[in-house]
Amino acid sequence: MPTDVTLQAAVAAIEAARQKADKLGVPMNIAVVDAGANLVAFARMDGAWLGSIEIACNKAYTARAFDMPTKELAKISQPGDPAYGIASSTQHRIAIFPGGIPLKAGGKVVGAVGVSGGKPDQDHAVAEAGAEAFGAS
Amino acid sequence: MPTDVTLQAAVAAIEAARQKADKLGVPMNIAVVDAGANLVAFARMDGAWLGSIEIACNKAYTARAFDMPTKELAKISQPGDPAYGIASSTQHRIAIFPGGIPLKAGGKVVGAVGVSGGKPDQDHAVAEAGAEAFGAS
Amino acid sequence: MPTDVTLQAAVAAIEAARQKADKLGVPMNIAVVDAGANLVAFARMDGAWLGSIEIACNKAYTARAFDMPTKELAKISQPGDPAYGIASSTQHRIAIFPGGIPLKAGGKVVGAVGVSGGKPDQDHAVAEAGAEAFGAS
Amino acid sequence: MPTDVTLQAAVAAIEAARQKADKLGVPMNIAVVDAGANLVAFARMDGAWLGSIEIACNKAYTARAFDMPTKELAKISQPGDPAYGIASSTQHRIAIFPGGIPLKAGGKVVGAVGVSGGKPDQDHAVAEAGAEAFGAS
Repeated sequence: MPTDVTLQAAVAAIEAARQKADKLGVPMNIAVVDAGANLVAFARMDGAWLGSIEIACNKAYTARAFDMPTKELAKISQPGDPAYGIASSTQHRIAIFPGGIPLKAGGKVVGAVGVSGGKPDQDHAVAEAGAEAFGAS
Repeated sequence: MPTDVTLQAAVAAIEAARQKADKLGVPMNIAVVDAGANLVAFARMDGAWLGSIEIACNKAYTARAFDMPTKELAKISQPGDPAYGIASSTQHRIAIFPGGIPLKAGGKVVGAVGVSGGKPDQDHAVAEAGAEAFGAS
Repeated sequence: MPTDVTLQAAVAAIEAARQKADKLGVPMNIAVVDAGANLVAFARMDGAWLGSIEIACNKAYTARAFDMPTKELAKISQPGDPAYGIASSTQHRIAIFPGGIPLKAGGKVVGAVGVSGGKPDQDHAVAEAGAEAFGAS
Repeated sequence: MPTDVTLQAAVAAIEAARQKADKLGVPMNIAVVDAGANLVAFARMDGAWLGSIEIACNKAYTARAFDMPTKELAKISQPGDPAYGIASSTQHRIAIFPGGIPLKAGGKVVGAVGVSGGKPDQDHAVAEAGAEAFGAS
């Protein structure tokens, strides 16, 4: 059982995510971080938003930093909600919208994938494809 | 009557907070700042969220910076509220959600404890345990 | 003649660099930016320095930002030299030591590769392998 | 063999460092990071320099980020040296003077300790005491 994300596993997750993005017809930025929330690999598909480079990395960071999909963090970070303000309380690395998903091995979070470039639901679906490929590896 | 937070007192507050977190079954990040709002001690319990390292420190900073629990600051920082925007008006050290509590000596604020790693109410409860231990010392 | 760096070309450059790093026996961080100096792809080889993630990206940025190898920039950025201070005059993305090399197409700079993880000469040699693979593509 | 730094091990390293600092008669800031270069524990001894809070954390970060004592990094980062500019090429987290030392388990770097508050040689000696305590645990 892997306890961390190798480059090979990260590249495989990115490739699976890329294929899903191709199917959706939306070029994406895709980032993978390891257990320490540090970047392992990144790919920007041709034509993907430049502004999403950092966002994809931050979504991956956030999903590992809080061991949950950024989609879940979004639900508790709205105005009036218990974690409202979490994104602005730190140095701008916390993403509170869909597209970041933890990578798990043996039920334990060992990294994360972050995707940005489309609509939030598309980002989440592409990240899911990456996470599934990692889980199956 | 102490006028500042010694390392010994900070460690004692962290230990009390840690025991409370253990009871709740949630690993936490716990930070203590002194009268100058500067970090005195910090502990990340095994398995606690990586993203909460900075947040715990910022909650402690905020609770001393404004001499009130961050839970109180949260109430006046929502959209439409008088302090809305306070978190984004600075270099991102201001936390506007529960988990930061001032440390008092003789009714005067001389520091603060910040906790992050669980639900906001859990963070607040753990910080409270730390603050109580300090007040009783 | 390509006028920009595609993901496919970036991945090929990284792969060539990775093979060179393998030969040297030093795990590296490898980044590729496009004509706009924006990140296209990144890979951290297993065991490569964590501190070099940002540095590899910054070397790639710098090599495109000034259209010269960072090794050349290093020569004019020492104390007393004409460009001394260039690294600290900005938001810290400028690398003034070897490991960043422009990617050229038809004699024109269209991107750059940045490598960090070993001795500066090793970083430069690995970046060179990446740049050569790009030039030959 | 530990593959990462637990809170208990970090606290023990800090305690050993603190005792060494006491012997030297210099109050220190002491930080410990884990394999992912993320903060595990921190202590500021009473009267220690406020400016050294961040420096101690950055020394620990740096020692893990490059898997070498910051004292070694210092030697290759002087003007004219191969890694000159490394500290200013990133977001100010790289320390190029003594006081940061990797923590090893089974010959592998799994974290680091960073110390700041005295003369560089004192910082290094105090960090060494922390690293030795970790290695012996």
